[in-house]
Amino acid sequence: MISMERTYSSDIKAGAKVRLSGWVHEKRDFGKLIFLIVRDMDGLAQVTAKTGVTDDKLVKQVKDIGKEFVVDIEGVAEQNDRAPNGVEIKPTKITIISEAESPLPIESTGKVQSDLDTRLDNRFLDLRRPEVRAIFTVQNQIMRSFRKTLDAKKFIEITPPGVIAASSEGGAELFPIPYYNKEAFLAQSPQIYKQMAVMGGMEKVSMITPVWRAERSNTTRHLSEVRQMDIEMGFATDKEAIEVLDDVVHTIFKDVKDNCDTQLKLIGTDFKVPKLPLKQITYTDVLTKLETEGIKIKWGEDLSTPAEKKICEIMGWDEPFYITEWPTDVRAFYSMPDEKNPKICRAFDLMFRGVELLSGAQRIHIPGLLIERLTAKGMDPENFKFYIDTFRYGAPPHAGWSIGLERITMLMTERENIREACLFPRDPKRLTP
Amino acid sequence: MISMERTYSSDIKAGAKVRLSGWVHEKRDFGKLIFLIVRDMDGLAQVTAKTGVTDDKLVKQVKDIGKEFVVDIEGVAEQNDRAPNGVEIKPTKITIISEAESPLPIESTGKVQSDLDTRLDNRFLDLRRPEVRAIFTVQNQIMRSFRKTLDAKKFIEITPPGVIAASSEGGAELFPIPYYNKEAFLAQSPQIYKQMAVMGGMEKVSMITPVWRAERSNTTRHLSEVRQMDIEMGFATDKEAIEVLDDVVHTIFKDVKDNCDTQLKLIGTDFKVPKLPLKQITYTDVLTKLETEGIKIKWGEDLSTPAEKKICEIMGWDEPFYITEWPTDVRAFYSMPDEKNPKICRAFDLMFRGVELLSGAQRIHIPGLLIERLTAKGMDPENFKFYIDTFRYGAPPHAGWSIGLERITMLMTERENIREACLFPRDPKRLTP
Repeated sequence: MISMERTYSSDIKAGAKVRLSGWVHEKRDFGKLIFLIVRDMDGLAQVTAKTGVTDDKLVKQVKDIGKEFVVDIEGVAEQNDRAPNGVEIKPTKITIISEAESPLPIESTGKVQSDLDTRLDNRFLDLRRPEVRAIFTVQNQIMRSFRKTLDAKKFIEITPPGVIAASSEGGAELFPIPYYNKEAFLAQSPQIYKQMAVMGGMEKVSMITPVWRAERSNTTRHLSEVRQMDIEMGFATDKEAIEVLDDVVHTIFKDVKDNCDTQLKLIGTDFKVPKLPLKQITYTDVLTKLETEGIKIKWGEDLSTPAEKKICEIMGWDEPFYITEWPTDVRAFYSMPDEKNPKICRAFDLMFRGVELLSGAQRIHIPGLLIERLTAKGMDPENFKFYIDTFRYGAPPHAGWSIGLERITMLMTERENIREACLFPRDPKRLTP
Repeated sequence: MISMERTYSSDIKAGAKVRLSGWVHEKRDFGKLIFLIVRDMDGLAQVTAKTGVTDDKLVKQVKDIGKEFVVDIEGVAEQNDRAPNGVEIKPTKITIISEAESPLPIESTGKVQSDLDTRLDNRFLDLRRPEVRAIFTVQNQIMRSFRKTLDAKKFIEITPPGVIAASSEGGAELFPIPYYNKEAFLAQSPQIYKQMAVMGGMEKVSMITPVWRAERSNTTRHLSEVRQMDIEMGFATDKEAIEVLDDVVHTIFKDVKDNCDTQLKLIGTDFKVPKLPLKQITYTDVLTKLETEGIKIKWGEDLSTPAEKKICEIMGWDEPFYITEWPTDVRAFYSMPDEKNPKICRAFDLMFRGVELLSGAQRIHIPGLLIERLTAKGMDPENFKFYIDTFRYGAPPHAGWSIGLERITMLMTERENIREACLFPRDPKRLTP
């Protein structure tokens, strides 16, 4: 029977009696001296058994313990500067909670590298590598900081549907679902729903919600299922949406830096906490800057991947910054054109480390203008009737933005493949585990 | 141009200059005296225009304002005990931000009742009724309290996939999706994924995630898409899972009571904050109690809906309580049987107001026992190979539970139909908005 409260590895203090529970991360057997490195959710701890010093029965028990066995070890912690956290445990009682079959499909200390596919196939074992789990501790902090900032600003979290009726945005990237006797689709964005909640008087709404895109692209940046961290706010322009975003981004960077220091070290990455307000540059100025670097983009065209990379280098690789005043024609039809110069609109992107981290805009809340923009884009307003009608019964100006959770996790942890920033990724080839 | 900061209705103080933005909830025109009741995310505020007192131009403007117009009103707040919050605004400037077409598809003061289907068809207008929006403020508090409690206990939030490969739990209630060239399904539970995260060493995980069930039942208690608030914890039995749950439920009840007082009054409901620990009764004792009330259930059978209702009456209608020590055969195959008496298992339900609010259990972490239980239930262990293999490489005892977000919202707000507790419900008949 287990006789005392569990001690987490990070809480072990020299001189104290402890009970450590976890997995055997490594075992180093030098004959008369055996080290067990035990891993729990907090980190690693060393258990030392020495013939002649440690009880014979315990030494024999340690001999039988294999890698990834789950163990419960009671003992006394002693100072040892060469052990993790500077302490080692001299065992007084060992309980084997469960054994591990061998060989393990993948190795959990990271000493033998597996390719990403093999790792993802065995994700629950892959997660046992502290540097892999660290990514998801960072991701957890990102979600917490997002919510903390918005809670304080009185945003209400909503739960938009994942299953939607025939989309009006065009069906190429949608997953169809036979829904009882109807056809339905997986949502590719909560856009219409967050706008409806604002029109319903919730005014300031936030959400972290899964969305799906049936793109057949097998890139390192795309997944078929991602999570979006979104807001939408009424009685607001792009300016107010950017103010909220500044605060959210700053809090995320600051909190990850403050609370995930161990994790960032394990991952082997770092970043600076950006100063507020975040820098802004207009689309037109981006083009001018790129031209001096030999990248010519015609006004009105979207930025290419190399152009995005280059402008991030120019503006400061590690510093998030906005690109504002986009050409109306390259943005979603619902982006609000500037009153004085309708060729540009109130949309913005936030760039970081070479890619677009998120985008946002003030939306059009005037039915007539929506119809005009749809027509200008060669789309049929009739297909958007439901959406347009939402703004007929008292619609305030409103704006919002959307951060990809896996995207920001990938960028902050400097992973090259977005799959590393998703616990159970889905892509055209991957549907399991 | 708007010249000052916005004041929310709940912050208006007598004597102060204010700028109120919102929708015209009601207009009462007595000829020389006109009241506008303006609604914002916080509540209602009264604006009073009086011929001979208020500027003529403003009186004329007020005459032209219709129901649900979006307005921006600057003025001075004066005490008036008959107005909402005890103050009324004497306007000095009025800006009409946007007009509302008429007639409105549904009425937003609740004076004309619409049936639930019509309300849901026009959900963004339905939400404008303060008592409807109040339900989602309560729901928001439920989510916040769930996360707050678990954050403090070092749980890590994970994002399980919504799209899964062929389920092993039987496909009748699953929505199939053509997934590129494969067949996939919408997840009906994050069960396997939360267990995998625990086996991966995350140890304590939580999530709020959508799940789907393709049941053709059109009851007031079922939806095709719901959100689950789940935890799973390693190195824990049902006892520890219940301890965490006690704390989560208590915090939710207490926080909703403390922070949503206005909302509960608007909804017209109330409840007591339960004392800790929550009461527990064994399944066998439930049967004994029911028998004295004339309801006979054979040991080993599940509780019927009337039986659930009756036991809640007996135990105290407004007090959540656990039913423990369930017959192993009526629970999911992965429920851990009791070591001393394998006919009962370590599963539990939390009951409240006549229904099961949530269920949980310690899980089987021993591959051989999983195979035994599957076989006993007439299921083929071969179909569960992937799941069973998860426990072969070092598996600690673990336990968890799952609360339906819409279910708890419905129960706490005493709604008769779960659709009222879901912003955009999905059922066999409803796929829009």
